[in-house]
This record gives sequence, C-alpha cells and structure tokens, in this order.
Amino acid sequence: MIILGIDPGIADTGYGVIEQNKKGDLLCLAYGSIKTPAGELLAKRLFSLAEQLSAVIKKYQPERAAIEELFFCNNAKTALVVGQARGVAMLICSQAGLLPMSFTPLQVKQAVTTYGGANKQQVQKMVKLLLNLKEIPKPDDAADALAIAICAAGNGDLLTKK
Amino acid sequence: MIILGIDPGIADTGYGVIEQNKKGDLLCLAYGSIKTPAGELLAKRLFSLAEQLSAVIKKYQPERAAIEELFFCNNAKTALVVGQARGVAMLICSQAGLLPMSFTPLQVKQAVTTYGGANKQQVQKMVKLLLNLKEIPKPDDAADALAIAICAAGNGDLLTKK
Repeated sequence: MIILGIDPGIADTGYGVIEQNKKGDLLCLAYGSIKTPAGELLAKRLFSLAEQLSAVIKKYQPERAAIEELFFCNNAKTALVVGQARGVAMLICSQAGLLPMSFTPLQVKQAVTTYGGANKQQVQKMVKLLLNLKEIPKPDDAADALAIAICAAGNGDLLTKK
Repeated sequence: MIILGIDPGIADTGYGVIEQNKKGDLLCLAYGSIKTPAGELLAKRLFSLAEQLSAVIKKYQPERAAIEELFFCNNAKTALVVGQARGVAMLICSQAGLLPMSFTPLQVKQAVTTYGGANKQQVQKMVKLLLNLKEIPKPDDAADALAIAICAAGNGDLLTKK
C-alpha cells in the first residue's frame, strides 16, 4: 500500500510518500516540500499548492493519505492562514478519491518513536531508521510528512472529522 | 459585470451574485447558502462545498469574485476550521480564473451603509434597498455575501494578499 503524508502550510507544504509491503516493511518512495511564491496573491499560492499536490498524487497514486492535525493555543491569525492551506490539501486529496486521515503531533510522535514526548530530532532520526534512509530527510516539513505517513501506515482505516 | 460574493464557512457558505450595469445600477441575480452535511468527514464537507460553489460559478459565470476576510481575536480553533472553508472557496475561484478580492467586515459595512459602525440589521436593510429586493435576503450568510458583492462592485480591481 502506498501512503501519502502531508504537513500543510502556505509557504511550504511537506509531503512524503511511502510504501508498506505485506510484511509491514516500509519503503520511502519520495519526499519533498511544495513551495508557493512569497509575495504572490493568496489565491495564486493556493492554486499553486493545489496543482503541485495534485501532481504528486498523480505520480505516486497513493491509496491512503494522512494530514497533520493542527493546534494553535492562541494564534488565531496563524491558524487562519495555515487552515486555508490545510483545506486546499484536504480538498485535493478528496477530489482524488482519498479521504485523508488526520493525526495530532502527539499521535505522530508516539507512532514513530513510541514516546509522545519525543523532540523533533528524535522523530527525524526514527524516520531515517524506519525508512532505511542514508540521512535525515530535509527540509523539516518533508521529514514531518514522512512521519505522518508512517503513523498512517500503523493506523488502519481511521478517519477523522477534524 | 457579474460579481460573486462569498461568506465562507464549513457548515454554511453564503453566496450572492449581482450584476452591475454600465450606469452602475446593481441587480441581484441569485443568493443562497451552501450547506454541507453536519457530522460528515471534514474532507467530504470540503468536497461538497467545492462542488456546490463550482456549480454556482458555472451557472452565473461571474467576472469578479470577493470573499470576506476573517478576523478572530482569540479563537484559534474556529479560525482553523473556517480557514479551511475559506481556502477551498479561494481555490475554486482561482481554478475558475477568478482571483478573489478580499474585504474586511469594516470595509463591507462602509461600502454598503457608508458607516463602519453599522449593525447587521442596518447592513441587511441597505442590501435590500440597493438591490431593490422585496424583502431582506435570508439566511444571514447569504445577505452577508450580497453585501460583499456590493462592496466589490464599488472597489475596482483591488486584489489582496490576505
């Protein structure tokens, strides 16, 4: 099964594509960061994000998608901006017939390191190990997206209303 | 010129379609509220919103679109949810070749009533008057969307990065 993980953002949306074979082994197929042009109109940035994410889905044909669930304690402005990118990413998945799963950062950390209190470096090291990569994937949002995909690999067909 | 106004939300997205003739007179072509099924998965709700909004654009072929700019002082959770709907609405506009303008609630009130401190009822009464409607449009989000379209009618080709 091919799984797409997404870490959404307006400027940078991380994506990671992994394959889980019947034995449960994980293989990294691709990862990267979708950039949108800074200073461009928001509608154009969202359009660009949608086009690039659609191209990733078309190329790798994932059968499952997962997206990070966002939490903001007190920054409503940031939440609004990132929410717009997340909405577009979810729409592109659903238009491709993928109903994206959604995981909190805590769930992702627990799935990847078995420890919810792990820091970013620990998560990234485990992503490298689990996917048998030569080095820690860069940039950070791509590594995060791979961690989300790994979390989705271990979580069956959970779907979310969030 | 045909103008589409949008008041975005996950459960209800108001839309209003008006036409401005060469003399500057405004005519209401349509208004309503796009509903998405409560309790359904977020990705399905966003998909439904996108489909319905695309149908409105296809039917009325607006040449300009405008969408309310959202402000949340301290409710990041609400901002995130509404942001996802706003992102989808902006994407659908831009995929249809419309780069949506964006107006704050204050700008909309000033455009419709010439008074930024106007309350919701005063705005709705002016929408009724300006569009020569028999009654105040319902529901509220449809009236708001018409107000946004009226604001766009008077604001040339302003575009926004917000």
